[in-house]
Amino acid sequence: MTLKVGIAGLGTVGAGVVSLLQANAGVITARAGRPVEVVAVSARDRGKDRGVALDGLRWHDDPVALAADNDLDAVVEVMGGAEGPARALVEASLEAGKPVVTANKALLATHGAALAALSERTGAALAYEAAVAGGIPAIKAIREGLAGNKLSRVAGILNGTCNYILTEMRVQGLPFDTVLAEAQRLGYAEADPSFDIDGVDAAHKLAILAALAFGRPVDLSALHIEGIRHVSALDIALAGELGYRIKLLGIASREAGGVAARVHPCMVPVGSPLAAVEGVFNAVLAEGDAVGRVVLQGRGAGAGPTASAVVSDLVDLARGRLTPVWGAAEPMDTAPPMPMERHVGSYYLRLMVLDQPGVIADVTGILRDAAISLESMLQRGRAPGEAVPVVLVTHDCEERRMSEALSRIEALPSVVEKPAVIRIETL
Amino acid sequence: MTLKVGIAGLGTVGAGVVSLLQANAGVITARAGRPVEVVAVSARDRGKDRGVALDGLRWHDDPVALAADNDLDAVVEVMGGAEGPARALVEASLEAGKPVVTANKALLATHGAALAALSERTGAALAYEAAVAGGIPAIKAIREGLAGNKLSRVAGILNGTCNYILTEMRVQGLPFDTVLAEAQRLGYAEADPSFDIDGVDAAHKLAILAALAFGRPVDLSALHIEGIRHVSALDIALAGELGYRIKLLGIASREAGGVAARVHPCMVPVGSPLAAVEGVFNAVLAEGDAVGRVVLQGRGAGAGPTASAVVSDLVDLARGRLTPVWGAAEPMDTAPPMPMERHVGSYYLRLMVLDQPGVIADVTGILRDAAISLESMLQRGRAPGEAVPVVLVTHDCEERRMSEALSRIEALPSVVEKPAVIRIETL
Repeated sequence: MTLKVGIAGLGTVGAGVVSLLQANAGVITARAGRPVEVVAVSARDRGKDRGVALDGLRWHDDPVALAADNDLDAVVEVMGGAEGPARALVEASLEAGKPVVTANKALLATHGAALAALSERTGAALAYEAAVAGGIPAIKAIREGLAGNKLSRVAGILNGTCNYILTEMRVQGLPFDTVLAEAQRLGYAEADPSFDIDGVDAAHKLAILAALAFGRPVDLSALHIEGIRHVSALDIALAGELGYRIKLLGIASREAGGVAARVHPCMVPVGSPLAAVEGVFNAVLAEGDAVGRVVLQGRGAGAGPTASAVVSDLVDLARGRLTPVWGAAEPMDTAPPMPMERHVGSYYLRLMVLDQPGVIADVTGILRDAAISLESMLQRGRAPGEAVPVVLVTHDCEERRMSEALSRIEALPSVVEKPAVIRIETL
Repeated sequence: MTLKVGIAGLGTVGAGVVSLLQANAGVITARAGRPVEVVAVSARDRGKDRGVALDGLRWHDDPVALAADNDLDAVVEVMGGAEGPARALVEASLEAGKPVVTANKALLATHGAALAALSERTGAALAYEAAVAGGIPAIKAIREGLAGNKLSRVAGILNGTCNYILTEMRVQGLPFDTVLAEAQRLGYAEADPSFDIDGVDAAHKLAILAALAFGRPVDLSALHIEGIRHVSALDIALAGELGYRIKLLGIASREAGGVAARVHPCMVPVGSPLAAVEGVFNAVLAEGDAVGRVVLQGRGAGAGPTASAVVSDLVDLARGRLTPVWGAAEPMDTAPPMPMERHVGSYYLRLMVLDQPGVIADVTGILRDAAISLESMLQRGRAPGEAVPVVLVTHDCEERRMSEALSRIEALPSVVEKPAVIRIETL
């Protein structure tokens, strides 16, 4: 009657799952209708103290052996990585008809379509609440809670490291490199931070949300991805003056030209529910034709929140509450991905220009030639002959036109730095 | 293979469900794994134009007849009311082993414990996502998405009418009566608004959330309930000066003395995620030991959001995703309800006092005698011999002591009105 679980990976998340199942066994048994117990584990180092009791658990040196352990009802994969043992274990488990719970966004974003087909074929569930937005039940909300809706947009603050850095840059007025170093010291950023700060982690999560929201095969290659390395403290301060906050957002939307999916820094109005989500918190927004806009926020990472998500998937398994991997057995939507150059929106441009006559006329002339109209312009301070910032906010225009105009602006002799460009989103 | 549905009630919500199932049949069939179709209805007036196609549907004049219609796989009850035909239909359906989806918070808050026992006995599911916070999948999030957690608190903005009125009072600086009349004109408030503005509707929803979050029998009688009739534009403005917004909140929490559940106007810090939820929007906050704080927001009423919630329950039924009514087959918690007089928190008091020597000394003397310490005091303007407002913000104290002190303050000859008292919540 017990749901017997094997866990591959005993890092922060794996140990958190073991700990949570032990600590909250009473409520979990009641909600699951039967006990949920870890009976087997696999991790690299048997001797390491992980702060949880592992006595009496079967130990497999090879994680893939969990798939063949006939005394297990479900496998939890929390090793990570799109390839290697994580992929091998998930494939072998599903192939063996054994349900899998995973927190592995890279695996799902990369091989999610094939894994879904495998899950359909063998009837073994593949659950992944922990893969997106940590403890926020975003997968369940979109896949089940909004099942009656045609969704038009799904978006979110999907990477806590980036949100922490952008928040600290704003609050403390410090440059990116300083705040990144501090985040690394505090353990909010990895020694090699590129996976987070270049937007790759957020892209994995957005690819998953887009597949789920729109019922399309997961397709990481269709995403436009930019990170936050080039966001400056100056632009964050200027954004504040204009009534915006800068956030790294993942946004997927149905457009006339197809499905757009993109991860990049955005300016969002301070009144937006996403603007108020600060520090390491995550948020997920979904828009449906019946429900309107729903926003969920909470902790996007850490042992507790991630274990909470893994255990909710295990309770679903214990109750027999099953759902196809991407919400439906077959893809429902085959609209083409929309290329980024067809994106339409408004833009914040910050130029560093020599304070001399004619510069503004040159810049605005280039924008006029590209049929880009301005909503506002901000020039602060004077320093004749030296570089000063000029901020331009455009009305809606197509990305392609903006790119062309920017190439011409950048080539002006009076423009002394690469222009800073941040898209404005009125979420 | 089709899930055949009978709907009792063809008001805004019922017609919305019929319309949504028709309009989004493609995605709903894919997500449900089979078609979900309305085949029978019951409503008062056959001839009325409801803006949806009802051709070919069986019509039952008596809603309870839906329970005996053997060609139905599920009954949707959207008539409303804790007694009468709604209760009779839900009981008869469950008794007949037929699953029920309802939006009826009054019924669940009043008879939810008995209905859950009936559902357990016959094995017929009783689903009610639409009963709380409209389109926000709050029931699913708490019952399933946070199933691994011991929850310590659940709270929310649960009544859109009240939130609309409080928002408009703040933004326009208008008194309660004026804004209520405008809300009635716009259809945001009923002709008899007492159910909403006296906190009864929010209390029904909080009783449901508390039962679900803590695994206890639903118990409306244990709630402390206050509405918003006595919130003044002056207090809203003063709240703003102190860094707060006034919201009608429902809050249920585990305390040392038991489970506290209360609905009343609160001052919440402007930085709180609940403070930013304005107008007719709702929000639900849950705190779990593993997940920390999760906040969900969206539209709490209206045909589309409510139909979205009803359809998500139908999709669960179609997929066979079943859950006990209150999340577990048996109550998990039998802690006593904590009486309101044992509530501990800080308070905003606004007194209208005659501007004459000694008044403040009298008031602060009474608070000192009750061992209530002050965080701040605000006195604005001077009008010797006339009434002026004095605002006091206390540190944490027990409600019982505050009530006693207030009786004494109110009896002072220099206090010319009943003091305004609003509890401060640092959510």
